[in-house]
Amino acid sequence: QWMMLDWKPRRSDMLIDPFGIGKIVQDGLVFRQNFSIRSYEIGADKTASIETLMNHLQETALNHVKTAGLLGDGFGSTPEMCKKNLIWVVTRMQVVVDRYPTWGDVVQVDTWVSATGKNGMRRDWLVRDAKTGEILTRASSVWVMMNKLTRKLSKIPEEVRGEIEPYFVNSDPVVDEDNRKLLKLDDTAEYIRTGLSPRWSDLDVNQHVNNVKYIGWILESAPQPILESHELHSMTLEYRRECGRNSVLQSLTDVSGADIGKIADGGFVECKHLLRLNDGAEIVRGRTEWRPKPANNFDVLNQVPSQST
Amino acid sequence: QWMMLDWKPRRSDMLIDPFGIGKIVQDGLVFRQNFSIRSYEIGADKTASIETLMNHLQETALNHVKTAGLLGDGFGSTPEMCKKNLIWVVTRMQVVVDRYPTWGDVVQVDTWVSATGKNGMRRDWLVRDAKTGEILTRASSVWVMMNKLTRKLSKIPEEVRGEIEPYFVNSDPVVDEDNRKLLKLDDTAEYIRTGLSPRWSDLDVNQHVNNVKYIGWILESAPQPILESHELHSMTLEYRRECGRNSVLQSLTDVSGADIGKIADGGFVECKHLLRLNDGAEIVRGRTEWRPKPANNFDVLNQVPSQST
Repeated sequence: QWMMLDWKPRRSDMLIDPFGIGKIVQDGLVFRQNFSIRSYEIGADKTASIETLMNHLQETALNHVKTAGLLGDGFGSTPEMCKKNLIWVVTRMQVVVDRYPTWGDVVQVDTWVSATGKNGMRRDWLVRDAKTGEILTRASSVWVMMNKLTRKLSKIPEEVRGEIEPYFVNSDPVVDEDNRKLLKLDDTAEYIRTGLSPRWSDLDVNQHVNNVKYIGWILESAPQPILESHELHSMTLEYRRECGRNSVLQSLTDVSGADIGKIADGGFVECKHLLRLNDGAEIVRGRTEWRPKPANNFDVLNQVPSQST
Repeated sequence: QWMMLDWKPRRSDMLIDPFGIGKIVQDGLVFRQNFSIRSYEIGADKTASIETLMNHLQETALNHVKTAGLLGDGFGSTPEMCKKNLIWVVTRMQVVVDRYPTWGDVVQVDTWVSATGKNGMRRDWLVRDAKTGEILTRASSVWVMMNKLTRKLSKIPEEVRGEIEPYFVNSDPVVDEDNRKLLKLDDTAEYIRTGLSPRWSDLDVNQHVNNVKYIGWILESAPQPILESHELHSMTLEYRRECGRNSVLQSLTDVSGADIGKIADGGFVECKHLLRLNDGAEIVRGRTEWRPKPANNFDVLNQVPSQST
């Protein structure tokens, strides 16, 4: 799970990309970093995978904090959060992908944070084609504080609020909030994949399973015909509980309003998802929307791939 | 599986990093590219995983070809290879890792090719810490030609030899060839993991399973105590057969000369590996050597991670 993140301004000369990893723009409130899409970040469709995109979001969030001058305890907390054993955990993530970049494309990721509700922080991302400025992806996430020892959620203490509020941007989310309730799936789900468990290499430095890995697990139960004929257009995830290093998970998917046998004929498809432990405890609920793949990526199986541009 | 790769010089002004991805050095025969290690490329030990390193090797091999001016049919072949339906496939890979980089480190990867045997091509890589020049990783691989339609190995036709020979460097491998025979494991292997199969996102643009994925599968059967207390020091892989998109694999590991219960006490450990299909057909044989993790990475579980530098 993503652990988030403390930051603090240091000196104005930090604003000129001291690490070569990105820079603060717009009055120090927005962090910007470019990524060149690498060959191993693309899949059978020759486009970057959703996991790749999510990795870039994670990297900019961490570099935002790092560049602002204080990475705290590594994946960390503000000084006041450290004193109180508080960490950030993500509770909700919404992503809308308009176009997936391909090998050699350069994407520009902007990220910033805002207040949300009484005890939450929102982090938004806007991903553009660095050459044309075209918006490729928008993402919005909600974070709350958790006590590292009791693993219980916490209000934002006043001392912490004082530290972080100066960095809040006053803006609407880049993705309209999807308020439809995410339904709980059960054993009647159409597609169930069992026996999923973290590999050593899936653990982050806090020995937690990385947020991005959850997405891979969710897609493990998405039916192959959808993966082949459609691409993920949007995703809403609700994180409900941590997954430990020894957890064994089940991935459940229900396809709504589509005949899976005719899926390749086109049209949007919506899926519901659940990641749960074997004992039924819910880890992540989700909803995904899929749209037919663009014609030029389609049927790549039977054609010689053309030169990437 | 890696598909390799045709290249051709274009113009001398191509030598100054036209794509921002790397450049040709040393008389046009060596390709060099820097990588900044990203947060999502490190694991629980705070160091880059072996998969990350292998991804960087793949990326430089492809960019070597791309920068030289001809990427052919995407993951391709020289014009003469195209005429004859020939592609490159890897048959052998040796990797020695002296030190794993961490988040924020910049590594400099050099790669070049040479002749090997009558019908092979060798590709070597040398990975350095870009700041200090310290050698981090050496790797050497052997490639042969395969007919894309019959999937049979082929000699190098004279016309193709004429195209590629000008790019061969006359040098010894950067890794001494490990001539010890790789033994075949069977059902008596100590650790067996079954039911491994490619996900859609594991397929490359040729609908093949990426070479790097094989390494992940091999490590799936490596016992957890070794992964926790040791790090991969060296690896020899022999690729024997392709794995298709619908294959179901088994990963077998034997630990040599070590009591797994006392593994954390230290010392080198050697493992033998086999990836095979359910029907027994061999995909990859391998040998790995593991050394105790450096003290400062050890027991990261129980300490607050320190700030990365």
